[in-house]
Amino acid sequence: MEFTKSEVDTLCEILRWRRDVRHFRPDPLDDALLARLRAAMALAPSVGNARPWRVMRVRDPARRAAIIRLFEQSNTQAAAAYDDATRAAYLQLKLAGLREAPEHLAVFTVADPAEGHGLGRQTMPETLAYSTVMAIHTLWLAARAENVGLGWVSILDPDAAHAVLEAPADWRFTAYLCLGHAEFSDDAPLLHRTGWQENHEADWIDR
Amino acid sequence: MEFTKSEVDTLCEILRWRRDVRHFRPDPLDDALLARLRAAMALAPSVGNARPWRVMRVRDPARRAAIIRLFEQSNTQAAAAYDDATRAAYLQLKLAGLREAPEHLAVFTVADPAEGHGLGRQTMPETLAYSTVMAIHTLWLAARAENVGLGWVSILDPDAAHAVLEAPADWRFTAYLCLGHAEFSDDAPLLHRTGWQENHEADWIDR
Repeated sequence: MEFTKSEVDTLCEILRWRRDVRHFRPDPLDDALLARLRAAMALAPSVGNARPWRVMRVRDPARRAAIIRLFEQSNTQAAAAYDDATRAAYLQLKLAGLREAPEHLAVFTVADPAEGHGLGRQTMPETLAYSTVMAIHTLWLAARAENVGLGWVSILDPDAAHAVLEAPADWRFTAYLCLGHAEFSDDAPLLHRTGWQENHEADWIDR
Repeated sequence: MEFTKSEVDTLCEILRWRRDVRHFRPDPLDDALLARLRAAMALAPSVGNARPWRVMRVRDPARRAAIIRLFEQSNTQAAAAYDDATRAAYLQLKLAGLREAPEHLAVFTVADPAEGHGLGRQTMPETLAYSTVMAIHTLWLAARAENVGLGWVSILDPDAAHAVLEAPADWRFTAYLCLGHAEFSDDAPLLHRTGWQENHEADWIDR
């Protein structure tokens, strides 16, 4: 299988227009679209072919409300750690679209899956969670190509989120995602646009 | 920016034909190609826009040889943990292309970067390494689209690799990658083809 220059360009455009979305329209996503996203996610790499990610579609309003409270608690604590000027800037940022997004997905990593028979993760067991992260990134790109936005909410206490969602004991909370149509598209990160953190790029170094 | 059905299909084909490559041709990659891969990698998401990944292009033959020794040590230890039948199957697998691949990249994560001002990683500091992992996955897809194979060598002691590469003290070893033209292409993982671990897919569950 050989890809063409035009296909490289398409991938680069999808990469360029993928954003962490926090501004969602509330209109629902249809089931066929969600099925396509799920199929794309299954193409992600994983250590030992273990595919350790588990996805929970959070639909219960009470659980969603509990997650929003957890986010607000952690966000208030995070804000408190800054000096006055930085805190004011921080509090101006919209860091999650939990109230508007039509879909919430919680993503977990199985702690010690039988699949893969341990291959590739004896010296670096963190590669299991890394596999889940690449599956999330796969979902993210597939969503962007389908003109659907994804936002990763990392301002959460992982143990508290695990408890709220009553996840199995051997699942590790890895990420909480919002999914829905974005209110706008942009080819630069919002944190760059707002002046919080400009894009920077480190050189590759030789050794 | 709205993508079309044809662009979704292109992304899905790239995802489908991306493999963890361990069979490389030794012919070198040209600098223009490496520059395009580096530019694509810079489009990856990162927590707080911190972009904490650092890439080291390992060219020194003595360092490459030391990494190969580390791989062989860890691989021997990993094999020893299996029962006889499984160990025999394990030892039949080719798990790295370190000797043939024309490019070796070591990827690190800065432990506490100033960039991002801590945003998004107070409750889940592992999101810094997760950002690096998404940058690696971005590189992986860009390489596949350019018809270049990438193999992730995770069977390494991370502290020993850090020492061999004389990385800065505040860089955490995240991954060691081989890059080069693949000897063959396939739309299924080699571990599936060899019968080590078949593809399986977990359902999404509702909560």
